[in-house]
Order: sequence, then structure tokens, then C-alpha cells
Amino acid sequence: MTVEIIAIGGYEEVGKNMSAVKINDDVVIFDMGIHLDRVHVHEDTDIARMHSLDLIERGVIPDDTLMREVNGKVRAIVFTHGHLDHIGGVAKLAHRYNAPIIGTPYTIALIERIIKSERKFNVPNRLEVLNAGEKCQLSPEMTLEFINVTHSIPQSVIAALHTPEGIIVYGLDFKFDDHQIISPPPDYHRLKELGRKGVLALIVETTRVADSEEVKTPSEKVARILLEDIMKRPLEEKSAMIVTTFSSHIERIQAISDIAKKSNRQILLLGRSMERYCSLAESMGILKLPENASIFGSPKSVNRALARAEAKREDYLLVTTGHQGEPDALLPRIANGKTQFNVKQGDNIIISAPVIPNPMNIANRNLMEKRLTSNGARIYTNAHVSGHAGKEDHRDFLRMLNPVHVIPAHGDIYMLSAYAELAEEEGYRLGNDIHILRNGQAQVFNGGI
Amino acid sequence: MTVEIIAIGGYEEVGKNMSAVKINDDVVIFDMGIHLDRVHVHEDTDIARMHSLDLIERGVIPDDTLMREVNGKVRAIVFTHGHLDHIGGVAKLAHRYNAPIIGTPYTIALIERIIKSERKFNVPNRLEVLNAGEKCQLSPEMTLEFINVTHSIPQSVIAALHTPEGIIVYGLDFKFDDHQIISPPPDYHRLKELGRKGVLALIVETTRVADSEEVKTPSEKVARILLEDIMKRPLEEKSAMIVTTFSSHIERIQAISDIAKKSNRQILLLGRSMERYCSLAESMGILKLPENASIFGSPKSVNRALARAEAKREDYLLVTTGHQGEPDALLPRIANGKTQFNVKQGDNIIISAPVIPNPMNIANRNLMEKRLTSNGARIYTNAHVSGHAGKEDHRDFLRMLNPVHVIPAHGDIYMLSAYAELAEEEGYRLGNDIHILRNGQAQVFNGGI
Amino acid sequence: MTVEIIAIGGYEEVGKNMSAVKINDDVVIFDMGIHLDRVHVHEDTDIARMHSLDLIERGVIPDDTLMREVNGKVRAIVFTHGHLDHIGGVAKLAHRYNAPIIGTPYTIALIERIIKSERKFNVPNRLEVLNAGEKCQLSPEMTLEFINVTHSIPQSVIAALHTPEGIIVYGLDFKFDDHQIISPPPDYHRLKELGRKGVLALIVETTRVADSEEVKTPSEKVARILLEDIMKRPLEEKSAMIVTTFSSHIERIQAISDIAKKSNRQILLLGRSMERYCSLAESMGILKLPENASIFGSPKSVNRALARAEAKREDYLLVTTGHQGEPDALLPRIANGKTQFNVKQGDNIIISAPVIPNPMNIANRNLMEKRLTSNGARIYTNAHVSGHAGKEDHRDFLRMLNPVHVIPAHGDIYMLSAYAELAEEEGYRLGNDIHILRNGQAQVFNGGI
Amino acid sequence: MTVEIIAIGGYEEVGKNMSAVKINDDVVIFDMGIHLDRVHVHEDTDIARMHSLDLIERGVIPDDTLMREVNGKVRAIVFTHGHLDHIGGVAKLAHRYNAPIIGTPYTIALIERIIKSERKFNVPNRLEVLNAGEKCQLSPEMTLEFINVTHSIPQSVIAALHTPEGIIVYGLDFKFDDHQIISPPPDYHRLKELGRKGVLALIVETTRVADSEEVKTPSEKVARILLEDIMKRPLEEKSAMIVTTFSSHIERIQAISDIAKKSNRQILLLGRSMERYCSLAESMGILKLPENASIFGSPKSVNRALARAEAKREDYLLVTTGHQGEPDALLPRIANGKTQFNVKQGDNIIISAPVIPNPMNIANRNLMEKRLTSNGARIYTNAHVSGHAGKEDHRDFLRMLNPVHVIPAHGDIYMLSAYAELAEEEGYRLGNDIHILRNGQAQVFNGGI
Repeated sequence: MTVEIIAIGGYEEVGKNMSAVKINDDVVIFDMGIHLDRVHVHEDTDIARMHSLDLIERGVIPDDTLMREVNGKVRAIVFTHGHLDHIGGVAKLAHRYNAPIIGTPYTIALIERIIKSERKFNVPNRLEVLNAGEKCQLSPEMTLEFINVTHSIPQSVIAALHTPEGIIVYGLDFKFDDHQIISPPPDYHRLKELGRKGVLALIVETTRVADSEEVKTPSEKVARILLEDIMKRPLEEKSAMIVTTFSSHIERIQAISDIAKKSNRQILLLGRSMERYCSLAESMGILKLPENASIFGSPKSVNRALARAEAKREDYLLVTTGHQGEPDALLPRIANGKTQFNVKQGDNIIISAPVIPNPMNIANRNLMEKRLTSNGARIYTNAHVSGHAGKEDHRDFLRMLNPVHVIPAHGDIYMLSAYAELAEEEGYRLGNDIHILRNGQAQVFNGGI
Repeated sequence: MTVEIIAIGGYEEVGKNMSAVKINDDVVIFDMGIHLDRVHVHEDTDIARMHSLDLIERGVIPDDTLMREVNGKVRAIVFTHGHLDHIGGVAKLAHRYNAPIIGTPYTIALIERIIKSERKFNVPNRLEVLNAGEKCQLSPEMTLEFINVTHSIPQSVIAALHTPEGIIVYGLDFKFDDHQIISPPPDYHRLKELGRKGVLALIVETTRVADSEEVKTPSEKVARILLEDIMKRPLEEKSAMIVTTFSSHIERIQAISDIAKKSNRQILLLGRSMERYCSLAESMGILKLPENASIFGSPKSVNRALARAEAKREDYLLVTTGHQGEPDALLPRIANGKTQFNVKQGDNIIISAPVIPNPMNIANRNLMEKRLTSNGARIYTNAHVSGHAGKEDHRDFLRMLNPVHVIPAHGDIYMLSAYAELAEEEGYRLGNDIHILRNGQAQVFNGGI
Repeated sequence: MTVEIIAIGGYEEVGKNMSAVKINDDVVIFDMGIHLDRVHVHEDTDIARMHSLDLIERGVIPDDTLMREVNGKVRAIVFTHGHLDHIGGVAKLAHRYNAPIIGTPYTIALIERIIKSERKFNVPNRLEVLNAGEKCQLSPEMTLEFINVTHSIPQSVIAALHTPEGIIVYGLDFKFDDHQIISPPPDYHRLKELGRKGVLALIVETTRVADSEEVKTPSEKVARILLEDIMKRPLEEKSAMIVTTFSSHIERIQAISDIAKKSNRQILLLGRSMERYCSLAESMGILKLPENASIFGSPKSVNRALARAEAKREDYLLVTTGHQGEPDALLPRIANGKTQFNVKQGDNIIISAPVIPNPMNIANRNLMEKRLTSNGARIYTNAHVSGHAGKEDHRDFLRMLNPVHVIPAHGDIYMLSAYAELAEEEGYRLGNDIHILRNGQAQVFNGGI
Repeated sequence: MTVEIIAIGGYEEVGKNMSAVKINDDVVIFDMGIHLDRVHVHEDTDIARMHSLDLIERGVIPDDTLMREVNGKVRAIVFTHGHLDHIGGVAKLAHRYNAPIIGTPYTIALIERIIKSERKFNVPNRLEVLNAGEKCQLSPEMTLEFINVTHSIPQSVIAALHTPEGIIVYGLDFKFDDHQIISPPPDYHRLKELGRKGVLALIVETTRVADSEEVKTPSEKVARILLEDIMKRPLEEKSAMIVTTFSSHIERIQAISDIAKKSNRQILLLGRSMERYCSLAESMGILKLPENASIFGSPKSVNRALARAEAKREDYLLVTTGHQGEPDALLPRIANGKTQFNVKQGDNIIISAPVIPNPMNIANRNLMEKRLTSNGARIYTNAHVSGHAGKEDHRDFLRMLNPVHVIPAHGDIYMLSAYAELAEEEGYRLGNDIHILRNGQAQVFNGGI
């Protein structure tokens, strides 16, 4: 039997992830993401209304046209979590395949919303829920299993594809965090079991591996302590208070909410994507907000909420979009005086997110911070820990799974190379059992374990 | 007699330079610059139509309102070169003082154009030309002298104010370059003479002092060699060729022109500010272009020129504005497909300018380069040397002038501190004879040398 | 009355801190530190045997010779914590002053050991203990008060000198940490009270202010979580395990010990300075080690302990000196094969300390890590949080104390300048009420609050 | 026919370069370098007296033991220039192969000296000179050609191996410099001819490709201008003057000598390796020193020369080893007071070399500079340009040769990856026609062009 790993997207960039695994005539696709940076290069890009081929040409979604030449039947399109660089292209690409879409409940619900707002294509694929810890047979010879793991969005999983040739593990994205509130600790026990059963290949994220230090990524518990210590005083002051973080980081928003709940401030979650992720998470029982909390996404409702907050600034805690200073998001619009809410001397603004390091974010964030502070706001910026595995977590992951082959993904060539270097420290060898692929290339294994 | 140095602008930022020197009742003002970065913070800023006080409040021009409390008669407003961070505020501020404006011919001509395009104020001040090497009596006890120096704009000078208390030297901005084509070498001889006569105080730029290395700034001769080596092959190719550099850097544009003259390409200088600085320089005999060269500044004429270049791309060398990727400048507009000229595979683009390191420039430039290369252009980026003195040039300057007091200027607190550290290596002492001033502060010397 | 703040050392470097406060004829000295970096420049420096004047010339200890010209009686030499850059010069300088030495019990005990090991001078000064929260009258008009604060060594305090002209606060070094095990939270209540009573001047550390981000320094609770997560697996493995951290960071060593106590490993604290700080801390009841823990400092006893650990590597947790890779410290010697303990494949080494960023440390640490990993060790490096206040902690400190004057200390000119910039954001002004001093300079306040 | 490229050393580090090319039964070896960094990790390494296998184990020389399994006859060992990371292992490895050593005259002369000072092995290989522009038949089907190129040591060449399957080009190390004094410009004409004839594979250095900017490396003409401008004043002063640079950089030393010749100072080239490279270069007519210049290498002669220079410091220009601050080299020893020459106030020291960026060099250099300046010396540090091709030079090189396959070498995985990225911009594809090899791996091409 021949096993083939096909790199479709995300092997030359951080974004637009998509991979396929082919065993005999069965194909499984993992992820259909978008690459938001490319939208800046082509200013007139309108994702919702554009055709796949145009988006492919602009580098916004993965170029899956090579799949035409792959003989075999696509049995499933699998999504391991709900971030846009993994699911954002689903409405542009999935309908080309006659196969169900599989994910955990929260991931599936997010995909459902994307499909609903699509303007160009009809997406008829069946949506199937698979929970962490569960398996599902995709074909006589292929079984998919979801293993619980932690990340910066709820219900993230590592996918294991059981085949006659061995197990293929798809590990994008994850961190090892034993202390989250919403998500249980990663299922290390099962990962080790898979390692003992025999993993033929591991496809793995590389986000933080190029960081030079030998680190395990700190737990969200650390973010909670940072936030508690930072939020304590502002919660008691008479001035306005805004926290901005990733809309999909429900764990973080839960922590913020839990800290704020003990104060007299009412929590308002504001902004379109804040509404998208949090309403869903609340309705599914994942996010537990206090009774008096509200979520507003539409411009009109956000404006009304801001007007109320402007009038009684010490009564609210605003949790907003805009942590990267993106000009159209809420906090940058507040900073630029484009809303009913005016930042004043003494207002406290907590940015619970890093600057995602590309030049445009750095510039936008810098401009936003300048505007906020020139109006008298006090800014706190370090209330964050990463959602991605550190070098030492990856080392542990490799030791647990003990795969025969390793395929680093989710990064540019430097990040893939950095992972290769790490794997070499663990006894692998680039070109032998570590394979750096480029978008559009395939790695074939003749014979399994 | 009391000598007072008043820091008005440029002591907390790179931009909006303005200083005053007061001796008894005579006051001399140096520079009235603008701080362009502040315009980004307030998007609706319209410099030409806004009132001084609004521009002061937004940090765009120096806050000279403190001059109301300075008793004394302003005898002259002196400009040592024509960059906007030194002359850009002249039309907003000069009319408040009943005093002539003094500069070298090119500087005065540039000031004249600013005054003509001013929409808010009438600027009645007399414009007086003083050449390098010349003196001019400002009052019975004060004589102004211009000493020739080199920089990145023609006819830059160091100003020396001769007073009964000693000489005050204003050294913003300069480099020591013995090999420029247009400008003769700095007048070291006269600087040393001043040092022997007795310099009471030196007000000095600090642009490159915080650089960690012990360097003399390389000569423009180095830039010429770099450009020659880079331009050689592109000049001979059949594809389009664009060079972008500072519009006011006539020395550089002369070098580019001299190199290109030997080829078959016709030189087109394009863009509004390219027209402003180069036409003037050409009409004054400073810049010497080949017969068939043209300069176009108005949108219509630029468009026509671009259409011609599009048709016969191997016949032209375009020299354009936009080296920082500023969205409204020409090269970024070309990159973004907003002109009649389309960048194609094989076109060569030479950026003869550094990224001026603020986050917005870095983002703009990055975006422009991405757009250019995604259209197939080849970019060269290192064809540049600085126009500012390096650490070791400053050390030489201090040794030549041997001033009693040193006042670093033209920088934020880190740059002023870096200069202080350098001066301490030369035997000065912060707080004793090195004085770090903030905008609005004055340093008083009781008694001269 | 005239108040004079005299900068003796630590105003141009991180190290050799020493300041004096003079009110009328009463003088109080704060700190007598050493500057270890300077020892590298002069290789033959032997601190214990050298005369003060030689050490002053080499820049190893503060140049207090200027104190000869200060008229007034030194009433006390005050130490706010026991780090060497604050107390290391005590045996070289204190005997020149007929005044008692005052500190908290642990600080005094450390000073006592330094005095005992001095080979050149006899130090007859009386040692006086003052606890946090206590006061002590130094002269009819001066009362010293110690306010509890947290840092990276136990029993750190902020000193307040009550005078008729207002309170002088000496705030070197501290962090605001509400979650330490050994040290109670900082006495914010008292700091605010002092602020209301009237603080004339604040002398304050600046270690982390030049960091660009707006941060509060994370609590040691964060370090505990990091260590717990990192140490968990190595504690259970059969291989050797070494942790290295600051010998004086008893809080950290307590955390390491608490985590290890639940395992089967016996804790050995090894190395000369480990013995110095930890034995003392244990004997004073500050550090609480498990029954079977041992501390060894002499070469012979360390060697014996290492031989035992070599024989049964899974039975011990070694806590050693050498986190900076200093060639003579224990872990670097182990790495270099100079002890009886050989690092083997699979051994785990946790560095619970940052690289203190000077070139020699970076090189030494890099070499040590290379040697350890080339022997097969696995290294973890991020198990650390700083012991110094972050920018936002300093902002809070300023708001609590509301001093009339601010004097940044404990840093080079860039760090002092960074603090000045922060203080300017809080409404102070460099040159008016922020004073950057150089070693040897004094700031005089005529009249108090 | 099968062509095989065997990566022996230098594919995971900067150092110990060694590659082999096998066509049918004929093998050609390129380079046998050493990796000096590894010596620091094992302090007791004594290269001259140690056995190859020990040096291989310590990573000091390439591990050529894999060559035992390569069936075929080694026809030649080829060296393209005389730097130690290319020739330093020759005396340890060459004798294992029954094949002549081939290089340009200067390279061969340097190899001869290494072989003479070898203590462990007898090296019987015949030494054969091949000049740039010449060919030499190695076997019925293989002809070696040397193409003239420029670098930072004289007589550097690019090697072309003509085979029935196409040309194999070995391009380590080079820059494209049209303005050197000693070396004629690179033979671009021949490189283009090779490109037209058909290059099967290019093995190429990657030293500067990871630099982010799109640069051509500046010519040595730029270094000459920098040196002229820097040396001018010190040459005229009455104080001592020292220049330090790479001993093998004869082009640079020639420039220094030419500048100094016009002064009254006598040139002394001092230090063991200065003697090795410069005496040879002078005796071969490559380096042309003034009549009164001297070269001293032995400790005794260096000491005598330093004593003379100490006595009449304004009469000499010392050109010394030690630009990286290596403790045993001359300038660091002078700085540390270990010679008869004492650095005094006003002495000028010009470092015509960059810091080769590894932590130990950074620390050593920093310490040396601190010692020099604390004795009153003035240091100049930017008198340098690189000897390695920049990104845009590499782009030109690829376009000239148009090879079917590209194999980046002479770097760690990040440097090789950076080259891969550049080659991808030029239409190649990693894994298809770009091959990243690790030490010990081979790339096989079945069938040629």
C-alpha cells in the first residue's frame, strides 16, 4: 500500500492550511484555511463574493486545483479547530468534494456560520460532529479519531487517522496546557498509546519552534494570574475600562469574565466577531457569562452599548475586538474618535493579545496605542500567553508519538526548518524521515510501519 | 551678560526643530520645522489650511507660544538647510516675528515656495540670502556666520553666532563628506578657527549617535560606487527601470543622472516633490541634468510621462518619489496599479534610501515591495549612505570646536542621552556642561567664556 | 533647610549602588555595592585583598572620596536588601564612617559574613537590625522607616527617611508581588500614607523601565506554575536532574523545594554561594527545606555529594550555582567535565534564571548549554520571572507616593532616561522635578514641601 | 550515467567544508576545512597533534568516514581558496586518498605550510597548481576548470567540473567585485558561457543570503574609501596607530599599505598568522609593501618590534592580528597589558573587520574594546565590506549559470533555507531542483542535462 501526504497550503506561510492524506484510493482532507495577509496586497479583495480561482490566484486560499490529478475518493474533510486559517476557506472549496465535513461541535457550528454567509457558492456537504475521544469510520480501511488537546479556541483536537499502514497524526494547532478552565487537559495517555501502536507520520504545526529558547508554553493559568493582577485596580476605579483579546479565545474571555464578575461592572462583549464566537460559545454552554453580561455585534447595537458606557463609564467592562489595531475593528475605531465612546484621562485599556508580528499589525497597533494614550488612557500590554506549543512541548509530543516520519507544517521555510532542527536533536534526519514540503508537493511512503 | 538657549522644538522628537538664542535683548531663532509623524495620529490634519495653534496642539509644529514671555527683540530667523523638519513650519510661525528670514540661496528659494503655497497666513518677513563663508551683522553685538558643511541637501551650513560672550554654534544637520560632487568639502579650517576663538555653546544634531558603533559616516562617493555597480546591468536590459530616492537629495540625484547619462535611457524625474526640489535646483544651476532629461510634477504631466514609459520601457529611467512606500507618492501608486504604468516581470527597481524606521514606514514599504515583486519586479535596496554625522564625526566636531557647553538637539531623550554619553567620553559632564533640554526649557549661562 | 541628594555610585551603571542624603548636618548613606562587570576588565582583581582606592580606580566599588568634602555627620549606613550590587562594598567603605549599619535581619546577617571574610580592613561599625514596618530615630530631626516590599531576596524593604523638609524615599530594588510564599505582599497602604504625608524626593530603581512594553512584572506565582509544569516529568524520570537559579533567590528555591518535596528525590543545594545564602536563610527560619535536604558549599563536600549523585542519579535533585555559565561556578564546571558528576543522555537541566544580558554572560551561558546538550542533556530555560518592577508598577508607585522630586537610579543613562520619560507621562518634567544625576553629582533642594 | 553529490561537511554549520562529486567511478573532492568554533567546546583540543578520528568526533573536521563506502577512485582533491574553513583539515584527511591536491598558487602555498606544520600525519599527496582560466584533465571523462572570481583572499576561483552529464560548478566562496586592486574582476563572460553549455548542478555558498535585504555586496573600493577617510587624521597625529584586519585579506592589507605609504609612518605587520599569509603573499609578488615595511611573526620578533613602536609611537603603523578579540592574538594581548606596547591616551585603533557573530567573539571583542578605550584609545569600527556575495549577486550568479540543480552549502539549515527561498524566487523548487543536504547525505542525479 502507498501512503501519500499532499501539502496543499500552509507549507510556505502562516495561513491557508490544507493537507490531504491518500491511502490507496481513499483521501482525507484536513483544513481549508485562508491567508488574511494576502488581502492587504490586493486591496479590492472581497472574499465573500469572489470566486475560488481568483482567491487562489491572490494567495488568499489554498490552491487545491492539484487535487484534480489525485486519483481517489475524498472520504472526509476534517477540521481540528475553528480558527480562520484552518476553516476560513471552507465555503470556497468544500463543495468541490463529495464528502462530509467533520469537526467537534463548536468547530462545526462555526463552519455552519461561514457557509451561511457565503455569497458565491452553495455548499451542500453534510456536517458531521465528532467529539474528542470518539472515532468514526471513514472507509473500510480508514478510521478517524479525535484526541482532546488544548489550544486558544475551545474543542480543539489532534486528529489520528488509523490505517493499515499505521497511524497518521494531524497536529495543527495545539498547546499542552493542564490548567484550562473550559477545556480538560490534553489526553497524553491516548497520545502515548498511539505512539505504542505505531505512528507512520506526524503532520505538525511549527508556530513557536523558531523561537530560540527551550521553553514549554506557559499555561492559561499564567494569563489568569496576570489578568487578575492587572485588572484588580482598574475594576475599582471610576474610569472606563476596556479589555481587548481574540474573539475566539473563549478560555481567555471566560477568565476575564470570572475576574470581572466579582466587581460592580457589567460586562459588554462588543464587536462583530466577538458576537460571532461568543454568542455561539454561550449558547452551546461553553462560555458562562454572568446574568447581566451582554453581547453586541451589529453596528447599531454596539453603538447603543457604547453610548451607555460613555454615560456611566465606571459601570461597565467593555470587551472588544481590535487587539491588532485593525482600522475597522472596534477598539481602533474608538481610539480614532469614530464612535460614541470617547477615551478620557484615566481610562484603563488592557490588551490581552500579542502583536502578531507582521509590519502592518505593528504599525496599526502602534498608531492605536498612540491615539489612546494621547487621549489620556493607560494601557497594559502583557496580559497574554501563547496558544501554541513551545519547543519543549514539541519535543515531548515527538517522544509520545514516536512517529516514523515527521512533516512540519503551518509555517514558512524558516519555521519548517526550525522544526527540522528540533526533530534532528531527537534523532530524526532531514531528507530521511523529516520531510519539508512546499505547497503542491507530495510525500509518498511505500509501505507502512 | 546673560546668554540663554531656548529649546522650542525638536528636543523630544526627530522633527519640528526650533531653537532660540537670547543675548541681552537680542534674540535669534533657528529653524521652524514640522513633525510629519504627528499628522498620522490626527488623520484630518490639513497643514496648509490649519491655524498655527491647532497645529501646535497636534504636535505638528513647535510650540513657540513661550516666546511671548521672552523679553527681547528677534533679530533674525535663521535656516541652515532646506529640509521640512527645519523649514516646514515657516509659513505658520515666521509672521509672528518682525525679523528677516536668513538662509543660503537654495534654502531661501525653498522657503519662498512654502510661503507661496500657504493658505492661512500672510508671511511678510524679508528673505535674505547669506552664502556659506559669509557673515552678516544682526545687531550691534551679534554677527551671524555661515560655515560650509555637507549634508543630504545642497547648500547646508553650520551657523555661528558671534557674540561678546563667545560664539554660539548651531550644528543641525550635517555630515563630514570630503567627496561630494555638488558641495565642496566642509570648511574644517574655519571650524577649528572658531574653536580657537572660543565657542561658548554648541547646539548639535544627534541623529546617528545612538548607533552603537564607532563610525564615521561613509561619503556619498560610496553611494556613487554602489549605484554604479547596481545600475550597470539594469541600464542595459530591455525592461523598465525605476530609481526612487529623497527628492531633496540633489547630490544623489546628480549621481544617478551622471551614471544614467552614459546609457541610452532618458531620465524622467517624476512626482510632486521631485519637481519641487529638482526644478529649483536645476534652475539655480545646482543640479545638472542631461539635455533630454525631464521633470514632471503635476498629476497630469506625470501620467503622460508614465504612459510614454509604459510604451517604450527600455528607453527611460524613471526617478520617482515614494521611497518610504507612502500611499500617495508615486512609486507606491505604481506598485498598487493606480497609474498608467504597469510593473512587469524583469523590471528593475532601485531604492536609494533607507527605511526611516517608524512602524508606519516599515509597513508601507513592506507592502510596496510585496506588490512590486509579486508583479515580477526585481528590487535593490542598499544603495544609500546616511546624510548625518556618525559618532566619530561628532567626536571630531567636538574636538574642532572645543565648546564650553554642549546642547544636544534633534532627537528624543535616548538620542540626546547617547550624545551626552559621547560628550562625556570627550571630557564633558552631563549636568555641568552638557545640558539635556526638553521642549520649552531654557539654559542660561551667566557670563561667557 | 537644605536637602541634598548625593549620587555616589550606580548612576552610570547597573552595579556599585551608593547614595547619600544630607539634611543640614545629618547625612544618611544608602547602599555600598560592587560592580562585578569591572572585575573582568582587570583580570587580576582580588576584591578581598585589595584596598578601597584601587577598587575605586578600577570601577569595582563606588567612589566615595567625594564624601570628604561633604560637611556633616553620617548618622547611618542603610541597606535595603542583601544583593551584592548593594552590600558588596560594605567591608571596603563602611569603616571610614563612624556610623551604624542598619538593615533587616537577613540583610544584616549577609553583611556580617562579608565583613568576616574581609582580608584588608577591620570594620568596626555597629550592626543594627530594623524590621520592615519599624522605625528608628537617627538624629533629632531624622527618622528612618522600613516599609515591607517584595523583590528576589527575602526581607527587602523600601526605606523612608522622615525629615522636617518632607520624606525622602529610597526605593532600590523592588517588585510588587502579592503572591510570594516567604514574603508578605508590599505594604501599599503605608506607601499611600507616605504619599499623603508628603514625599519630597524619591530615589528609585530603573532596571526594567527601558523595556518597551507597558507591563506589570509577573508574580513569583507565575514562576511557581512554570516550574511545576516543567519539573513534573523530570522528577519522575530515572535520569539526573539539576536546577540552577540565583543563590539569593530564597523564594524561588523554596518553590523548587516545595515542588520537589512531593517526589522521591532528595534535594542537594550545592555551591559556595548557594551555601552562603541558603544556610543562613534556613538557620533564620526563612527557608524551609525538607528533612532530607542538604546544603554543601565547600569544594570537598560538593564533590562528595556529586559523587553520590553520579552513583544514583534518579535519587537526587541538584540545585546548583552557575546559571550565567560563569566558568568557576558549579554547573559550568559540571558541563565542562571538571567534576565527578558526568552529564548523560536524558539528564534534565532547568535554568530558572534569565541570561543577564552582557556579552560575557551570553557567551558563557551559550558555551555551557552547548556542552550540556552535546552530552545529551535536555535543557529548559524559561522558568523565571523578574524581581524588578515593570513600567506599570513604577507608574503605580509614583501615583502612591506622589513625590515632589524624582531621582532615577540604578542604571546607565538610557535606563535613567527611560524612567524620566515614564515620569514625564505622569506629569513630571526632566530638569524641573526629574533629576538625572551622574556619579559624583548632587541635587540640592532649597526648602522642602 | 549517475552523478552523485556527496555532502561531507559544511552543510550544517559555517565551517569544515567538504563535498565530493562522483560520476561513474570517478570521484573529485572539494575542500577539507575545519570548524574552529568546536575547539572552544572542547578546551583541550590540540589540532596539530590530534588524530583525525578524534577531531571528527569533536566536530572540528568533516566526517569523511562515509567515503569508505563510496565505490570509486578519487581523482583529485580541489581547493578553491585558502581560508581555513576550506583547507584547514587537509593535513588530517588528504593522506587517506591517493590523489593530487589542486589549487591556485597561493592556495597551494598555504596548503604546503599546513602540511609542513602537521605533527601527526605524513601527507604524501602531490601538490598541483592550476591557475584561474586554466583547465586540467582529471580522468578520461572529467576535466576541471578554474574560473577567476573575487573574494577576501587572493587567487580565489570557482571550480567547474566538465563531465559527460553536464558541468558541475563548485562556488564556495566568492563575491562579485569589479574594483579590486590585486585580483582582476570575476570572469562573468566564462560563467555565462558555462551557463550556455549546460550546468547540471551548482554547489554554492550561502553566507549572506539570510540577510533580509536585497543587496549586492559593496566592492572593496568602498572599503578603500572608508579606510582613506578614517586613516587620514590618525596618520598625521603624534600618537600610536594600529589597524587590525584578517591576516589573509591581502587585498585589504594592500589598501591599508597604499594609504599609509603616503605618510611618514613605517608599516609593521605583526602576529603569527599575519606573518603566515603576508610573507607568502609578498614573496609571491601578490602583496606589494613599501621598502621600509616589515613583517614579524615569532613572539620574539613581535616583541622587539613592539618595543620600538612603544618608544617612537608616531613613527609606525602597526597592522596586527586579533580583530575578533581572541585572547591569544596580538591586539587583545596589547589591550590586556601583556606586551611591551602600552596603549595610551589618544592612540588610534582601526578595526577593519566585522564581529563574526557568535557569542564568544562578541564577548571577546567587547572586552578588548573596553580595555583599549579605558586606556584612552580611540577606536574606529566600520572600516569593512563583506567578502561574500549578497542576495542580488547570487541572483545574478544563478541567472548566469542557469543550473538544472542547485545545492546550497556552507551554512546551517537557516542559511541553506534562505538560499532555497531565493532560488524559488528564480523559478526553482525545493525538493524538485533545489536540494538541502545534511552532512553525510548524497544527492543522486540519474542522467544529466
